[in-house]
Amino acid sequence: MKKINIGIIGAGRIGKLHAGNLSMRIPEANPLIISDIFLEAAEKCAAEYNIPQAVRDYKEILSNPEIEAVLICSSTDTHAQIIIEAAEAGKDIFCEKPISHDLKLIDEALEAVKKNGVKLQVGFNRRFDPDYRRVRKYIKDGEIGDPHILKITSRDPEPPPIEYVKVSGGMFMDMTIHDFDMARFLIDSEVDEVYAAAGVMIDPEIGRAGDVDTALITLKFKNGVIGIIDNSRKSVFGYDQRVEVLGSAGMADTSNERPNTARLSTAESISEDLPLNFFIERYTESYINEIKEFILSIINDTSPSVTGIDGRMPVLMGKAAKLSYAENRPVKLSEVDEGVTASFR
Amino acid sequence: MKKINIGIIGAGRIGKLHAGNLSMRIPEANPLIISDIFLEAAEKCAAEYNIPQAVRDYKEILSNPEIEAVLICSSTDTHAQIIIEAAEAGKDIFCEKPISHDLKLIDEALEAVKKNGVKLQVGFNRRFDPDYRRVRKYIKDGEIGDPHILKITSRDPEPPPIEYVKVSGGMFMDMTIHDFDMARFLIDSEVDEVYAAAGVMIDPEIGRAGDVDTALITLKFKNGVIGIIDNSRKSVFGYDQRVEVLGSAGMADTSNERPNTARLSTAESISEDLPLNFFIERYTESYINEIKEFILSIINDTSPSVTGIDGRMPVLMGKAAKLSYAENRPVKLSEVDEGVTASFR
Amino acid sequence: MKKINIGIIGAGRIGKLHAGNLSMRIPEANPLIISDIFLEAAEKCAAEYNIPQAVRDYKEILSNPEIEAVLICSSTDTHAQIIIEAAEAGKDIFCEKPISHDLKLIDEALEAVKKNGVKLQVGFNRRFDPDYRRVRKYIKDGEIGDPHILKITSRDPEPPPIEYVKVSGGMFMDMTIHDFDMARFLIDSEVDEVYAAAGVMIDPEIGRAGDVDTALITLKFKNGVIGIIDNSRKSVFGYDQRVEVLGSAGMADTSNERPNTARLSTAESISEDLPLNFFIERYTESYINEIKEFILSIINDTSPSVTGIDGRMPVLMGKAAKLSYAENRPVKLSEVDEGVTASFR
Amino acid sequence: MKKINIGIIGAGRIGKLHAGNLSMRIPEANPLIISDIFLEAAEKCAAEYNIPQAVRDYKEILSNPEIEAVLICSSTDTHAQIIIEAAEAGKDIFCEKPISHDLKLIDEALEAVKKNGVKLQVGFNRRFDPDYRRVRKYIKDGEIGDPHILKITSRDPEPPPIEYVKVSGGMFMDMTIHDFDMARFLIDSEVDEVYAAAGVMIDPEIGRAGDVDTALITLKFKNGVIGIIDNSRKSVFGYDQRVEVLGSAGMADTSNERPNTARLSTAESISEDLPLNFFIERYTESYINEIKEFILSIINDTSPSVTGIDGRMPVLMGKAAKLSYAENRPVKLSEVDEGVTASFR
Repeated sequence: MKKINIGIIGAGRIGKLHAGNLSMRIPEANPLIISDIFLEAAEKCAAEYNIPQAVRDYKEILSNPEIEAVLICSSTDTHAQIIIEAAEAGKDIFCEKPISHDLKLIDEALEAVKKNGVKLQVGFNRRFDPDYRRVRKYIKDGEIGDPHILKITSRDPEPPPIEYVKVSGGMFMDMTIHDFDMARFLIDSEVDEVYAAAGVMIDPEIGRAGDVDTALITLKFKNGVIGIIDNSRKSVFGYDQRVEVLGSAGMADTSNERPNTARLSTAESISEDLPLNFFIERYTESYINEIKEFILSIINDTSPSVTGIDGRMPVLMGKAAKLSYAENRPVKLSEVDEGVTASFR
Repeated sequence: MKKINIGIIGAGRIGKLHAGNLSMRIPEANPLIISDIFLEAAEKCAAEYNIPQAVRDYKEILSNPEIEAVLICSSTDTHAQIIIEAAEAGKDIFCEKPISHDLKLIDEALEAVKKNGVKLQVGFNRRFDPDYRRVRKYIKDGEIGDPHILKITSRDPEPPPIEYVKVSGGMFMDMTIHDFDMARFLIDSEVDEVYAAAGVMIDPEIGRAGDVDTALITLKFKNGVIGIIDNSRKSVFGYDQRVEVLGSAGMADTSNERPNTARLSTAESISEDLPLNFFIERYTESYINEIKEFILSIINDTSPSVTGIDGRMPVLMGKAAKLSYAENRPVKLSEVDEGVTASFR
Repeated sequence: MKKINIGIIGAGRIGKLHAGNLSMRIPEANPLIISDIFLEAAEKCAAEYNIPQAVRDYKEILSNPEIEAVLICSSTDTHAQIIIEAAEAGKDIFCEKPISHDLKLIDEALEAVKKNGVKLQVGFNRRFDPDYRRVRKYIKDGEIGDPHILKITSRDPEPPPIEYVKVSGGMFMDMTIHDFDMARFLIDSEVDEVYAAAGVMIDPEIGRAGDVDTALITLKFKNGVIGIIDNSRKSVFGYDQRVEVLGSAGMADTSNERPNTARLSTAESISEDLPLNFFIERYTESYINEIKEFILSIINDTSPSVTGIDGRMPVLMGKAAKLSYAENRPVKLSEVDEGVTASFR
Repeated sequence: MKKINIGIIGAGRIGKLHAGNLSMRIPEANPLIISDIFLEAAEKCAAEYNIPQAVRDYKEILSNPEIEAVLICSSTDTHAQIIIEAAEAGKDIFCEKPISHDLKLIDEALEAVKKNGVKLQVGFNRRFDPDYRRVRKYIKDGEIGDPHILKITSRDPEPPPIEYVKVSGGMFMDMTIHDFDMARFLIDSEVDEVYAAAGVMIDPEIGRAGDVDTALITLKFKNGVIGIIDNSRKSVFGYDQRVEVLGSAGMADTSNERPNTARLSTAESISEDLPLNFFIERYTESYINEIKEFILSIINDTSPSVTGIDGRMPVLMGKAAKLSYAENRPVKLSEVDEGVTASFR
């Protein structure tokens, strides 16, 4: 079996998750080095998953000729720069979302990828979830006819720590970005305009940090479809992740995944357990699937299905949503685009 | 048992429905006369439900001293005028929605009701549906804490005939008006601003008639709640009527009512019958409940729970939605209000 | 509209229910007299539903030439005798289940019906419930292929008063009898053998009265299908009424009917309201449907779909179940049949 | 991390499944050798999962001092003998179900385990499934009060090849055995008596082989609970695995697990995908959990939760069911027990 030698950059929560999947679940992957600016974090992860080498500096990964591909799981502000360096080092690249909050940096990163002819997959893992895949297949197969209305429900069980909120780029950029990607994935058309209604309902601290915690974002797609994303930073009954697409010939929708199907009927009510708690539990399978596809795209020399432009568009949508909320008006994506998107398609 | 003598004005679809409920389901009601400008329609309905008298002119009902209350089920453009006349005749009034598309006429009608001290209930029957009542009760009882996000799904199985569309006042005024009322009913706060994204996706004829057939309407309530209504004139799987309210302590939602609970599992799929087809089937019970409440409010001399102002606000919201769609911008209700709402509260 | 003049014999719970349906929901019915050995009960019911006459003695109904049909809602031990007298008086007959606990009396009653050429419908109302009808239609339409396994869940919310238990004929005869009928209705074949495992788990008083309160009854049908009925006198979460039929090409099943579709999701669980509480609420529609069919079968001179033999067979099955439980062995129906069933088909 | 050195005996479907789990999902396991009488099968499996050694003769595993524990995944007729040899070799043992169809051999095997003080876990993996665990927890926590009625639905998507049917020991021993174990697991009491109604409805070949393909098995537990298992060799809509327990204070039940939550609503019906197809897909997690528990019970020197007696009782129940079906009468387990069960508890 052909195996791909891999370096993992970043041993935080998501880096560890990918390290575990690579070593335990993807036989085609051969994780050789993991780096972290906190060397102990890299060492601990290496020990847990039998990764031979742990280093502090990711440049040691990029300069290692054995390494064929890298996973960029470091902090967001380093993504674009490491993509450029990894591309120049000829490594295939899997990069966590978002590439950057700065469209100019994104475009430079995509340019480097293009110039050096390496692969780039962006970590929109939800595209690999069986529920959403089935909905997309229903749409692709024409089961619902032409899509008319898209509805995405996406609510976290708890707001992140306020310190994180302050550096997150804001809810639209940090949380909605996944939903922006899902919208494009399901409808298969670009969004032309967004309108964001939002507020601070959960924690005034979030408001003081200049962010919102609850939002309804209207999307107008170029193909005429209209869509709505509803976000909340706190859904007390757990991670609430659903989609619904109404079309001319039918509707496709999903419900939340539960830890079990057991149901209890008592003299008070009929009840079931809460949904799977958060993204680590809910998207276990999609994380495995996305890395597996990345590895296989290298082995088979195919294009990953989540490209650089798929990394760029949701950032643009996030910027438009922020502006829309700030000025309480619909905002066209073209208004906030500083670059030349078309060339990257 | 105290019985209320009733006159029914209008023997069209909704007039017949109420006539049937009054004669077969509400022992406290004594329907004595039914009128219709097509006398045969009134006569046919009278015969079917044992109503003693059928007349052409509603004024015969208003001038009949035996009649204690009237149901106004005539065409929309006559509602306000008949309310005024019925109020002056001292009759208690149940009026189908909307009172009028003209706010000035509405205000004149409400003024007449006020001056003559008669009761007025507006026909927002969905408030009496067991599903929505239960959701409202969950909210009132504090089960979901403070409401944050409201979602209303309201989709018809088929667009009405194009001739109807042309005189309907537009989808926002004809169809969304029920959802505007539901929004106020569930959240118990006034809406401050609306933003309507909409399009013509189902039938270009509807577009040529100057109307839309698919819409997403964002609502901002005065208490901070944000809401979304999604409307479609054509949901091929049937009448799609659901609500969902997310709050700080939980979520309450409903699903569609089905004609039976039977489920068929075959080698292809697991399937169930479509939802109840349209409003007559879906809201059977709510139509009975609303008329029953109206009759009981007369017998017990209590205020009906759906007042004149409840008839006025959704019209205002419809006007704001139309303007929002026309100019593609959020519109405050105060912008379209020509009258003095406050005095009618 | 042709109307049938009806006499109601018995003004207890079920008599009142039918009286209400006849007067409020079935325009083709003209209830003229109601009788009860407690005259006041008959008078009260007559007043509530505008029935012109109330009498003590049912013979006044039978001797009234205006009366075309009777509903027998008196106590079980009088059913067979009244059927015979009503048949001889030439009245069409609707009789509550069971006709009798005594097969010989049943056969005499059926003989009288046959001889006098009157109609007889037995009150197995569940056959008229939309859920079970849909399952039967799935089976009839061949959607599940050949039926293999039948499962009926039938559980009451509360045991009846112990005084009632003592005269009920036992759970198999009083409660399971509905399920025995449902089994024949769905599978459309006669049962050949039953085996009853049962116990006293809910109330020792029931055991002291010589009865059981919990049971599993295995059915073997003549066409090879096997079936199981599970009964409990106490399902704390409410009336539990479900069926499931597995066939060679699929499965059809039903779930419980609920008072609303509202669902509450909190930090503890996702819950919904309990099922409709008991037979009056659960089978509202089926009671209307069965009486409507009876009236229409008279008007149109067609055979009622629930015949005398449909009244006889479940009693036979009840007797077999009692014997099976007493002797802990499978019992063939032929073993307990004292009469000649075939002649009544 | 402490790791247990393991030998796998048998490289058929279930042996490969365990080999995969041991090498990919259980970090605490160190699979060193795999044996199969078809050496190539063992070699292929070893290559796929990086198991260092593949041998033909399981005795090479038993005689290897490095090996601490063995998984017996060979054909059923070899289980008891290999248990005895492995116990004498001092290895901890995980054995696939059933230990044997011969109670005497089972008792000899359990005796050897006892004498040599090794651990024995029997492969009733469903006990480790999240759905059933949750139901058991509801029961243990008293949420449903005292259990009254148990219902187990267990239906395969397809009958096995007829050649397999002939050597399977019959449906009760091959398929129902899992349900017998589930019954004991959920109710936590021994079964006293069984009654089996069964037939050949799916394939006459199965009948000619002396077996049945459809069954209803009534269970009477020593604690008074009554239960029913329904089995079918062919459920065309897929693997149908559900349980339901009614108790004095409520009911706990499960529904089938589905590959996704997507739902399609069209003009014909509302449908969803079929359940997970068969045991490999349905019980993925339970297979991992059971092996993980076995490994941890060695590391922590605790007793496995599925013991030798848990392996013995379902065989006894299967024998009783066969006799019950053959003679069409309830059969007490004591009637078919040739050994002294009590000593193994």
